[in-house]
Amino acid sequence: MLFLAQPHGQAQHNIEQYAKLGTKIVDLAADFRLRDAAFYEKWYGEKHAAPEWLSKFVYGLPELHRAEIAGASYISGVGCNATASNLALLPLVKADLIDLTSPVIIEIKVGSSEGGAEGNSGSMHSERANVIRTFSAFGHRHTAEVIQEMGVKDVSLTMTAVDLVRGVLATAHAKAKPGVATKDLWKAYRAVANENPFVRVVKEQRGIYRVPEPKILAGSNYADLGFELDESNGHIVSMCAIDNLMKGASGSAVQCMNLMMGWDETLGLEFAGLHPI
Amino acid sequence: MLFLAQPHGQAQHNIEQYAKLGTKIVDLAADFRLRDAAFYEKWYGEKHAAPEWLSKFVYGLPELHRAEIAGASYISGVGCNATASNLALLPLVKADLIDLTSPVIIEIKVGSSEGGAEGNSGSMHSERANVIRTFSAFGHRHTAEVIQEMGVKDVSLTMTAVDLVRGVLATAHAKAKPGVATKDLWKAYRAVANENPFVRVVKEQRGIYRVPEPKILAGSNYADLGFELDESNGHIVSMCAIDNLMKGASGSAVQCMNLMMGWDETLGLEFAGLHPI
Amino acid sequence: MLFLAQPHGQAQHNIEQYAKLGTKIVDLAADFRLRDAAFYEKWYGEKHAAPEWLSKFVYGLPELHRAEIAGASYISGVGCNATASNLALLPLVKADLIDLTSPVIIEIKVGSSEGGAEGNSGSMHSERANVIRTFSAFGHRHTAEVIQEMGVKDVSLTMTAVDLVRGVLATAHAKAKPGVATKDLWKAYRAVANENPFVRVVKEQRGIYRVPEPKILAGSNYADLGFELDESNGHIVSMCAIDNLMKGASGSAVQCMNLMMGWDETLGLEFAGLHPI
Amino acid sequence: MLFLAQPHGQAQHNIEQYAKLGTKIVDLAADFRLRDAAFYEKWYGEKHAAPEWLSKFVYGLPELHRAEIAGASYISGVGCNATASNLALLPLVKADLIDLTSPVIIEIKVGSSEGGAEGNSGSMHSERANVIRTFSAFGHRHTAEVIQEMGVKDVSLTMTAVDLVRGVLATAHAKAKPGVATKDLWKAYRAVANENPFVRVVKEQRGIYRVPEPKILAGSNYADLGFELDESNGHIVSMCAIDNLMKGASGSAVQCMNLMMGWDETLGLEFAGLHPI
Repeated sequence: MLFLAQPHGQAQHNIEQYAKLGTKIVDLAADFRLRDAAFYEKWYGEKHAAPEWLSKFVYGLPELHRAEIAGASYISGVGCNATASNLALLPLVKADLIDLTSPVIIEIKVGSSEGGAEGNSGSMHSERANVIRTFSAFGHRHTAEVIQEMGVKDVSLTMTAVDLVRGVLATAHAKAKPGVATKDLWKAYRAVANENPFVRVVKEQRGIYRVPEPKILAGSNYADLGFELDESNGHIVSMCAIDNLMKGASGSAVQCMNLMMGWDETLGLEFAGLHPI
Repeated sequence: MLFLAQPHGQAQHNIEQYAKLGTKIVDLAADFRLRDAAFYEKWYGEKHAAPEWLSKFVYGLPELHRAEIAGASYISGVGCNATASNLALLPLVKADLIDLTSPVIIEIKVGSSEGGAEGNSGSMHSERANVIRTFSAFGHRHTAEVIQEMGVKDVSLTMTAVDLVRGVLATAHAKAKPGVATKDLWKAYRAVANENPFVRVVKEQRGIYRVPEPKILAGSNYADLGFELDESNGHIVSMCAIDNLMKGASGSAVQCMNLMMGWDETLGLEFAGLHPI
Repeated sequence: MLFLAQPHGQAQHNIEQYAKLGTKIVDLAADFRLRDAAFYEKWYGEKHAAPEWLSKFVYGLPELHRAEIAGASYISGVGCNATASNLALLPLVKADLIDLTSPVIIEIKVGSSEGGAEGNSGSMHSERANVIRTFSAFGHRHTAEVIQEMGVKDVSLTMTAVDLVRGVLATAHAKAKPGVATKDLWKAYRAVANENPFVRVVKEQRGIYRVPEPKILAGSNYADLGFELDESNGHIVSMCAIDNLMKGASGSAVQCMNLMMGWDETLGLEFAGLHPI
Repeated sequence: MLFLAQPHGQAQHNIEQYAKLGTKIVDLAADFRLRDAAFYEKWYGEKHAAPEWLSKFVYGLPELHRAEIAGASYISGVGCNATASNLALLPLVKADLIDLTSPVIIEIKVGSSEGGAEGNSGSMHSERANVIRTFSAFGHRHTAEVIQEMGVKDVSLTMTAVDLVRGVLATAHAKAKPGVATKDLWKAYRAVANENPFVRVVKEQRGIYRVPEPKILAGSNYADLGFELDESNGHIVSMCAIDNLMKGASGSAVQCMNLMMGWDETLGLEFAGLHPI
């Protein structure tokens, strides 16, 4: 079992060599997330160095590809923002509840740990504390993973950095198909939660934590989902909260390893989250 | 000159009495923000106590009603989230650039000072620090001010609390009318900035502060506007950042006073903002 | 096994009744921390309601009373600030390295979770964020636990709230006895770490985390100790970092339970801490 | 009027050249803060490049040298931590209230803006948020300025970084001379406040802000002083809070300029501070 945790763009140049090691591979970078070479080139602005390998990889989000992952040799990692977005959309797409001819807008708020271990002038505490800083209005590369995996053509991810270290909240705005009611949404979300050990539905009437929120997920591999339907206009707000340092990439990678090895999917990922932080 | 800074719902019961004082009034609560009694009842869930007074008030956002304010006796305050939303939409609506038959989605991120001076269990530091907490998916009362002032029928405000004290960022997502190009947006935003001393356009190619961000507005009365147009699908992202303790309500109220008294509109509001905080 | 987690002052009125339940008791409040009724009265400003019970309790810090705790029926909880202070002093006192005729000054910086679950105006996020707020220059009640347990007569605890949720850093300033050298301190600190599963010495030459710091202890039961000796004047700076929601009180209580029940002392307390938060 | 705002160590190599410009100079670096070349070498670890210039400079803290500054041509800047320490000690030293044969211990908590505009791995938000990080137990270079200006021989500064951007709180622990009472301290602090436009005494019985705290000083040039005397043992705790980006260095430099030019000392420095942040 080989985990590749390199900067983006390296694995595609060495994948032949890694594969000769005769082992299963999980690549945490973005090299093999997209299935189509032209689509890759569009979003990453360069030709893929090993396009023949793209079809050999399975996109490593168990909630989308559990069965395939269990039988696969090569797994791509997943983008943290893509994961929050895909899981926010999953119940809606799976149950065919939204009108995919209308735009889907996903607003994503993220903590500073998304920025990685190397700093720059914008990541210094004095400049990064107390921010509400939109660093990508649309066009973020993780968008490609949402288009590919959810089959939505008109989707935008807007990325805003806020003042916390760990955590992502993706809020997806979509148009319900005619006739869709709150009970349909409940059914769809519950179904996804029932099939996936790390998905929970958070939708409370009272208390501080009524909707998904990363604050209670620090250190955990859970993806908390929630939703609201404005019945006056069919506007659906679907939320997904994760700890980007867990479910965002590395937690999902461990989950994939567990599936590939035939182990319990939750092995090593049982931590419930630390609260308060 | 009388400033009413009472909890919502009190001024409408005493307005006759206040008016007898024979002075100009700025009411900072929400009592007189809406022009229509039925519309008020719909959003506030109760009959208005002085509906005949609604038409006597001018909505106190100088960027929308400067001339009227200058000649008015009664001015309503403005909601901080409504202000950020209205100013994010103003250039688009004024220049007629967006398709108002499509939904307008406004995502608003806010600091803790919006919560007022009285705390609750959710406002305690240990529960309020490090949050990305969506407290209203839609239906926030400030929405009514956006509908009234911008003439948009299908608009949603989604409110998310993040970890800072002062600051609001409203991000409006709207559909451009066919043929609208980036240069049209530039023209519209510049026009609004040119006409209003506290509106600036922030749209930089490099540096940390390329788009509107409340971090650099602490203590100032500026509303910073920015925008992006996705020419592939006509998706416009329009941002407005303010310090909610200034331009959000009290700063605009002082600005109104200046206009009503015939003083320089910027009097007492020149502070440029403190950075870094 | 009964854990009493009541507000201070209640257990002393009901201890007879609780004891009749015939079980071992760990009281997490301050009712039975002090051994002497007059000393209690001095620090708590009221007569103790069950003074005859004071001698039946063992002070529940395993690093000080492991053997007694293992054989005891009644264990008091420990103050979080007292724990950080006592552990900062422990190697120095145990190895007899400091001059106890000189004042010992302990500066303690604490997070907001020390304030408990009920808020007040000072604990609201808008007033509690970005603080460096000294709420007790001296005279904090936890001081009594340091005097009692460490045998220091002239000791002051200065308490300052800073902006984080979990964590305490106690910095003790003391005078070395003549002839004490850095190697003596190393020996004393290592000895304490060797004897105690939750005590570590943190003293690095490079890297970000060279001295004890709560940031890396979130969720863990470790007490990290570090020190510096100014050989020019015999000034010792001894630091202890803990997560107050773990080792501060509840973690130590679980540790006591483990000892009382004959279980592995570290049972249920193995979490290494979450980083970064 | 020339302000030198260079990295430390440059001005001493070029001072002859700067002086030929025939103007008054304020050097914000540490090059000319110390009066004695040997003392400089001890604290800075290198010979001074222009030792004959040391005596020509006046230490630029108006609260200590107002009259000299008014008549001087060359003014050194001041260290932010030295300033908070010197002002915390000033009333005590000036009124001769503390025993200078006993050690003076100063605990200083600082925000991230002290780290300057260039970041490193420790200043990244993900590593710098939520810290209580002691980066100097003793031996910080600013100590030299406290020794020189206050005449204390046995003084230690312990530096701890906490999670805010702007602000310093210095807490000085000293031994009162026999017979010193609280009223003597009041008198000494009031005298210093009366003589200095930017010094205030903060010592309240109730409310959130009872002692000096940087939270209310953001953007202001005030130094807030407070104190407590433990009459049982003569332990004095003296606090000084400043905004390090104002009174810490640049604010004091402007204050010096005002004095040197014969202008009102408070010119351009009247901002009262922004609250809450």
